[in-house]
Amino acid sequence: MTEPKSYKWFLDFLNPEEGHMHGIRTMLYSTQTKFQQMEIMETGSYGRCLVLDGKMQSSEADEFIYHEALVHPTLLTHPGPKRVFIVGGGEGATLREILRHRSVEHVLMVDIDQEVVERCKQYLPEWHQGAFDDPRVDLKFLDARKYLEETNDTYDVIIIDISEPVEEGPAYLLYTKEFYQIVNRRLTPQGMITLQAGSTAVNSLFCFASVCQTLKTAFPIVAPYETSIPSFGLPWGFAVASKGIDPQSVSPREIDERIAKRIAGNLRYYHGEIHQGQFLLPKHLRQRLASEERIIEDNQPLFTYH
Amino acid sequence: MTEPKSYKWFLDFLNPEEGHMHGIRTMLYSTQTKFQQMEIMETGSYGRCLVLDGKMQSSEADEFIYHEALVHPTLLTHPGPKRVFIVGGGEGATLREILRHRSVEHVLMVDIDQEVVERCKQYLPEWHQGAFDDPRVDLKFLDARKYLEETNDTYDVIIIDISEPVEEGPAYLLYTKEFYQIVNRRLTPQGMITLQAGSTAVNSLFCFASVCQTLKTAFPIVAPYETSIPSFGLPWGFAVASKGIDPQSVSPREIDERIAKRIAGNLRYYHGEIHQGQFLLPKHLRQRLASEERIIEDNQPLFTYH
Amino acid sequence: MTEPKSYKWFLDFLNPEEGHMHGIRTMLYSTQTKFQQMEIMETGSYGRCLVLDGKMQSSEADEFIYHEALVHPTLLTHPGPKRVFIVGGGEGATLREILRHRSVEHVLMVDIDQEVVERCKQYLPEWHQGAFDDPRVDLKFLDARKYLEETNDTYDVIIIDISEPVEEGPAYLLYTKEFYQIVNRRLTPQGMITLQAGSTAVNSLFCFASVCQTLKTAFPIVAPYETSIPSFGLPWGFAVASKGIDPQSVSPREIDERIAKRIAGNLRYYHGEIHQGQFLLPKHLRQRLASEERIIEDNQPLFTYH
Amino acid sequence: MTEPKSYKWFLDFLNPEEGHMHGIRTMLYSTQTKFQQMEIMETGSYGRCLVLDGKMQSSEADEFIYHEALVHPTLLTHPGPKRVFIVGGGEGATLREILRHRSVEHVLMVDIDQEVVERCKQYLPEWHQGAFDDPRVDLKFLDARKYLEETNDTYDVIIIDISEPVEEGPAYLLYTKEFYQIVNRRLTPQGMITLQAGSTAVNSLFCFASVCQTLKTAFPIVAPYETSIPSFGLPWGFAVASKGIDPQSVSPREIDERIAKRIAGNLRYYHGEIHQGQFLLPKHLRQRLASEERIIEDNQPLFTYH
Repeated sequence: MTEPKSYKWFLDFLNPEEGHMHGIRTMLYSTQTKFQQMEIMETGSYGRCLVLDGKMQSSEADEFIYHEALVHPTLLTHPGPKRVFIVGGGEGATLREILRHRSVEHVLMVDIDQEVVERCKQYLPEWHQGAFDDPRVDLKFLDARKYLEETNDTYDVIIIDISEPVEEGPAYLLYTKEFYQIVNRRLTPQGMITLQAGSTAVNSLFCFASVCQTLKTAFPIVAPYETSIPSFGLPWGFAVASKGIDPQSVSPREIDERIAKRIAGNLRYYHGEIHQGQFLLPKHLRQRLASEERIIEDNQPLFTYH
Repeated sequence: MTEPKSYKWFLDFLNPEEGHMHGIRTMLYSTQTKFQQMEIMETGSYGRCLVLDGKMQSSEADEFIYHEALVHPTLLTHPGPKRVFIVGGGEGATLREILRHRSVEHVLMVDIDQEVVERCKQYLPEWHQGAFDDPRVDLKFLDARKYLEETNDTYDVIIIDISEPVEEGPAYLLYTKEFYQIVNRRLTPQGMITLQAGSTAVNSLFCFASVCQTLKTAFPIVAPYETSIPSFGLPWGFAVASKGIDPQSVSPREIDERIAKRIAGNLRYYHGEIHQGQFLLPKHLRQRLASEERIIEDNQPLFTYH
Repeated sequence: MTEPKSYKWFLDFLNPEEGHMHGIRTMLYSTQTKFQQMEIMETGSYGRCLVLDGKMQSSEADEFIYHEALVHPTLLTHPGPKRVFIVGGGEGATLREILRHRSVEHVLMVDIDQEVVERCKQYLPEWHQGAFDDPRVDLKFLDARKYLEETNDTYDVIIIDISEPVEEGPAYLLYTKEFYQIVNRRLTPQGMITLQAGSTAVNSLFCFASVCQTLKTAFPIVAPYETSIPSFGLPWGFAVASKGIDPQSVSPREIDERIAKRIAGNLRYYHGEIHQGQFLLPKHLRQRLASEERIIEDNQPLFTYH
Repeated sequence: MTEPKSYKWFLDFLNPEEGHMHGIRTMLYSTQTKFQQMEIMETGSYGRCLVLDGKMQSSEADEFIYHEALVHPTLLTHPGPKRVFIVGGGEGATLREILRHRSVEHVLMVDIDQEVVERCKQYLPEWHQGAFDDPRVDLKFLDARKYLEETNDTYDVIIIDISEPVEEGPAYLLYTKEFYQIVNRRLTPQGMITLQAGSTAVNSLFCFASVCQTLKTAFPIVAPYETSIPSFGLPWGFAVASKGIDPQSVSPREIDERIAKRIAGNLRYYHGEIHQGQFLLPKHLRQRLASEERIIEDNQPLFTYH
């Protein structure tokens, strides 16, 4: 066997009978915010990590996979995104990836937890890389759903970058049919959205499948995709949804050309090949997505780990 | 946080500072064979699992992903595989998937550990599904490398289904340049091989990259691919290598047609879409594969977790 | 650090933020009985162990401490115990220690869980050492409280050897004032009882202290004592209670003489010196015992881990 | 089962197949000093804890047991200790307990690790309670063995308060026959010493027994004793050794009188009753101590966990 060398461990329980163990080198920050328990820790395998309510959010070593996979499929598919809205996105790395797009003129990021954002700014500079100071950015600490309900503004792309829907957590009303309808109304005619949608592990597909099914009640195009963020301990699902544009209609070569033209700096995870590849799903995942009937509603919300 | 409900845990250490935790429901079998520590346990998330030397080998819930991903890319790419050789493959599920191919006339499986094979036969019937009794099968308990060195027989496909190269384990001489040359000599002119090649997690690519690099010393075509077997706790790498046929030259539609024509029963993971998708790799993986220089040799073997 | 060598662990949670970890070598037996989850496992430090509802009950390596500490202080203090009643005592080791006493003519053991007793008999022969076959023994599988309420028989010594009072478990009504009054009525005039009473760890004295306080409502003499059963992970409390005889009135020398005269075979843990020593408690424990006001009643039962 | 509520754990491995788990609430300090890895963490069960090289040293909740048990048996037995020497004692709590004794005129504390002492001073004020500022105290950061070898000073009591003899650690040459002879030469004619001597768990008595046996080569009186410090996860052994005075010759009543007369403030753990009780050991411990033959020497040092 491999002999463990750590005596301090973060146990990220994926369900009551499974977890991923991270040896802790140092705890950098720990607090209870108004909304959640927050920790920034240095782990042996993934460097610095943001942990909220005991769940890994992103790590120094592989946050580039998560954030590139979340942002670029949508922004590169859209013909010319100017106005982008982020629901959540506390670490500032979603913002960072959006701002690489030269077409983007304005980003509004609405995160409910000011303390998380401020601590990430301080302790995780490689995540935001100064993004919060970009003049194109507007940052508000509000309930994003309420904000979207009340505003008349519209956006080309809305990116939902929030933690999972746990019972006590701040996020569960951001996974419902009603919320996706609100989001739809805040999109421009060619508008698109993208979101993370939970694990795609073979035995815990209920979240991913029902989120995709629920998206279909609000959007004609729903394109689920999958990637591996190793620090999460399980393969992970995402989805693009749109009023009409299909991300799978853009060829790998076209993606590579758009990257060259539209994006500043170098991507590490994303390129034309993976744009195509990540929408190609295994048969069992296709079948589960096709057969799912659950629609998540405000009065029948989804909670993971049930 | 998710509250764990198990008080018996299998800790699969992926490296000295990381692991995947499986709640144990029952231990079904446990022994020290002549070659390795073997356990069959019922876990909460993945049902029955085979564990060798403390490492997950395959689980009831997702072995279909591993075994279909290992067998079908090669056998479906090959124009008509008749004779197949398995190095290892103790659970009998690689055998099961090979035998679905109507073209296959003879399979020789050579596994060094008779006790593992016999216990899998007894405790994991869903894995082999009677495959060992198929008249096309010949099963030998020998050192596969030695056997391949000494035989004059040739095979259309050779599938290397072995555990990782750990220092005390039986497998490390099955990952070297010299071994791949022996394998090459035992292939028919259109011969192909496939193997699992370790984790593709962002910080532990040395095994996957150097196996692929080493394969290139013996084969003109090397096609690495990646999939997620959730019970492994990390994304996983495989490779097809061949004397000339490229698996990426076969279209998804052609794969689906060959499945319909050449395979008995229904696949659960594999179809044309994923055949194409799993060869499409992220940019950082492509770059690492391109820059790797390490060649694994008999006198400079590779050990994982170093 | 000490490097762990096991990859299968039994985590005995002592409270929600503390536990004792036992490396599992093999699982020998595992079942859900009518009353509780039962496991017999071989651990690295303590050999075979009985685990009920996820809590260590006794281990091959140190059950002699637990069982000698439970039985002999009372039986050696009593001038000549003939009739003994055991509440619980599934492993048969309490029975074994009682039967060493030459004066004992009859032991009635009443355990609610037949399956536990039968499996202990089969898997833990070093515990009972054939005690169940002794002609002086009567074994019944009943609710011990109900039995004691309904019988008219009396006993010289009653030993309460049960698991802790957990909410779903079978034992919580065997820790109340009402139960101790029932027990009192079933004792002969010189009758005595003994019981285990939970951890004596500095921060979790509520169980031990309130059990002792509750015993005082039914018995004029209550003598709490403490010993260390290493496999329990915490120091452990017991109590003798009696209608009049005080175990601390018997000198170490007298205990050693009685051992020589009255006990068959050799004791491993108990002798005159420890008889005296284990009743001598630290100041903080004395103070806690003196100040405790909680009386456990049927309608206000005690549950550990609250 | 008890459901754990923590997702950050300190695993204190007691041996390669056993450990004690402490839920971490916050990490207060963490560093690699010149000599050892040091952590100060807040745990759920025991409050703040000092951890060196992955081993619990002392905790807010029960350090009073450890330090009172280490200091008072010797200082209260000695007729009038004036000059005391501490080997180690980094937390300052051994110092605190010594300074309560009105007879003490001078304490020299020699700890090799200045950084540990300074951090304890800062983060663990309840341990030292200002003891370092007492004018009777002299503190040096040196190799205590070397210092004792070279000095001509003598002391009434020498207290050895060091971590366990691990291979890479700073302490292993402070457990040998040669060291105890050096210590003996630095004692006044009525001089006494005391030390902690490792776990007294039934299966790991080699350290405790061989330390006691080794002490006998340098001192005519050796009085081993045992207590439970719950945060250590196992029962713990200590020993008094002296040139002639036997701690067991002082009655509990006399101890209580001396406490009243000689000690300032209130003790929490120690009183006459436990002075007597802790020297009264179980039979198996007595037998092991009597049969041990191992003498620890400089060129045959003892390492725990071997």
